[in-house]
Amino acid sequence: MDKLRIFVDLAPAPEILELLQVGTAGHELLVSKTPVTSVLSKAERDPQLATADIAFGQPEPETVAEAKHLKWIHISSSGITRYDNPSFRGFVTECKIVVTNSASVFNEACAVHALSFMAAQARQLPRALDSQVANGTKDWHQLRGSCGTLRGETVLILGYGHIGRRLTELLHPFGVKILAYRRNPRGDEGVPVITEPQLADALAKADHVVNILPDSTETRHFFDAKRLGMLKPRAVFYNIGRGTTTEPNALREALRSGRIGAAWLDVTDPEPLPDDHPLRKEPNCFITPHIAGGHAGEAKTLVCHFLQNFDRFLRGEPLLDRIM
Amino acid sequence: MDKLRIFVDLAPAPEILELLQVGTAGHELLVSKTPVTSVLSKAERDPQLATADIAFGQPEPETVAEAKHLKWIHISSSGITRYDNPSFRGFVTECKIVVTNSASVFNEACAVHALSFMAAQARQLPRALDSQVANGTKDWHQLRGSCGTLRGETVLILGYGHIGRRLTELLHPFGVKILAYRRNPRGDEGVPVITEPQLADALAKADHVVNILPDSTETRHFFDAKRLGMLKPRAVFYNIGRGTTTEPNALREALRSGRIGAAWLDVTDPEPLPDDHPLRKEPNCFITPHIAGGHAGEAKTLVCHFLQNFDRFLRGEPLLDRIM
Repeated sequence: MDKLRIFVDLAPAPEILELLQVGTAGHELLVSKTPVTSVLSKAERDPQLATADIAFGQPEPETVAEAKHLKWIHISSSGITRYDNPSFRGFVTECKIVVTNSASVFNEACAVHALSFMAAQARQLPRALDSQVANGTKDWHQLRGSCGTLRGETVLILGYGHIGRRLTELLHPFGVKILAYRRNPRGDEGVPVITEPQLADALAKADHVVNILPDSTETRHFFDAKRLGMLKPRAVFYNIGRGTTTEPNALREALRSGRIGAAWLDVTDPEPLPDDHPLRKEPNCFITPHIAGGHAGEAKTLVCHFLQNFDRFLRGEPLLDRIM
Repeated sequence: MDKLRIFVDLAPAPEILELLQVGTAGHELLVSKTPVTSVLSKAERDPQLATADIAFGQPEPETVAEAKHLKWIHISSSGITRYDNPSFRGFVTECKIVVTNSASVFNEACAVHALSFMAAQARQLPRALDSQVANGTKDWHQLRGSCGTLRGETVLILGYGHIGRRLTELLHPFGVKILAYRRNPRGDEGVPVITEPQLADALAKADHVVNILPDSTETRHFFDAKRLGMLKPRAVFYNIGRGTTTEPNALREALRSGRIGAAWLDVTDPEPLPDDHPLRKEPNCFITPHIAGGHAGEAKTLVCHFLQNFDRFLRGEPLLDRIM
């Protein structure tokens, strides 16, 4: 095969760059001078992209349109907001550009993160770790009595892709009832799947509402005052998908009024959430700073996943995590 | 059957007492005037016990010795420290008194509590919930990189009874390697079991050391400076058994020196741990106030478990959770 030109707009550490160089030996790496540091920031225009056969990272869609040799784009995140629109989809279809993402790299950590939220909520960890109540006191009995085991509780997972499936596996031994919400059920989910007409009912009976919806024009502020108002009183709301799917003022009001029991958020709108944002003042709102997909050796896993796909690409095999 | 006299030294809420009264209708409840409020506090002498056929709660061992009609003691906790000695065991064997405990009532919650600790540690929840780092910054990458998924890690569980087995079930989907330490392996554990001669090796290779040892003269300060010194560097230590099994100064030193990565404790020595105890000042020491077995409706579950056993007792069937 001819020498391929691979555009990379990540900012890898030297040892990770070396891994990428070794894994693509014989081909040409075009490392961007203006790399993207976050999935949420906008990529800068880099003319090198226009000459590339392959793009790995978060390539800027307008420049992609000028890259006449491009055959494959491997997105370095699980979320694909900036590419998930009819114009981009139409363009890559027309130009026969394959698009893959890095979902596999982050799925496991995201599912474990969601489970850690649910277990911490069940055992009231934030309050318990902050408490020094003595055995046998009234406050101690109250704290113990506010704890649970999740058994018999209903968990509604919205957005039932790889993360949702993995979360279901992790939750299996807890004895919970799982419901999945999905726009287009495939029939292979292994759990009861509901669509829009059954959503109000499901929201009203779930003890735990786990939002893993992606960001798109259809999901923007999906959880607004109306939908949050459908939740069972004292239900717990989790967001580990994208912050934009939840209207922050409506969530704050649902917490403030005691309508919902707690919220656990790894993503927010805006992000990062300002230090003085009202959600930070809600005692039952627990926020981690968009780290659900994070794990030790993440950059290495990300590059290895790309290299696995690169080998498949060279051999003409179907690519992993293909999304377009 | 004759009317039985049932001594109860708990302090149940009115509705729970009513449940107990209804469930033992036709028999006589002797409710102690000096009930025990905590499994760790000493019961006061109550002369009513001397006339009872059945004792439910934490009956004081010396008074038990004077209760000539006693046939069955149902202990209201999972731990049995005050009864676990040759003198008491000899006495109940000689007098043919059956002794049961309430392990089943607390197992599930204890296992979920341990799992919540492990998941919170894997996802660095205490630090992450306290952090407002922005996406893409160096601190953000550092926080993400300090997170994990437990996959492939080794978990050593010491004291492998019902809680340990249940924890193994909960951990199963995470892809961890489990080792159990048990004085007397039974062969039905379903996981590799080690005994004393292999302990040093196991301590040196475990990423997570979960201490669920009961309190006894043999386990007192089981985790002293020597055994803690055998742990793999940066290992995480959990105690959800009894506080007395771990020497607090040695644990503090292991944390202070960075020898171990973190400690998650639901039980301590002493208990409650004073507000100014050095362990409270260790940034990687996370303490909940002996609530692992707690759950909503706990008092009701406890009484229902006793009543289940009471029905078995009346029918002459084997009792649940028999320990002597």
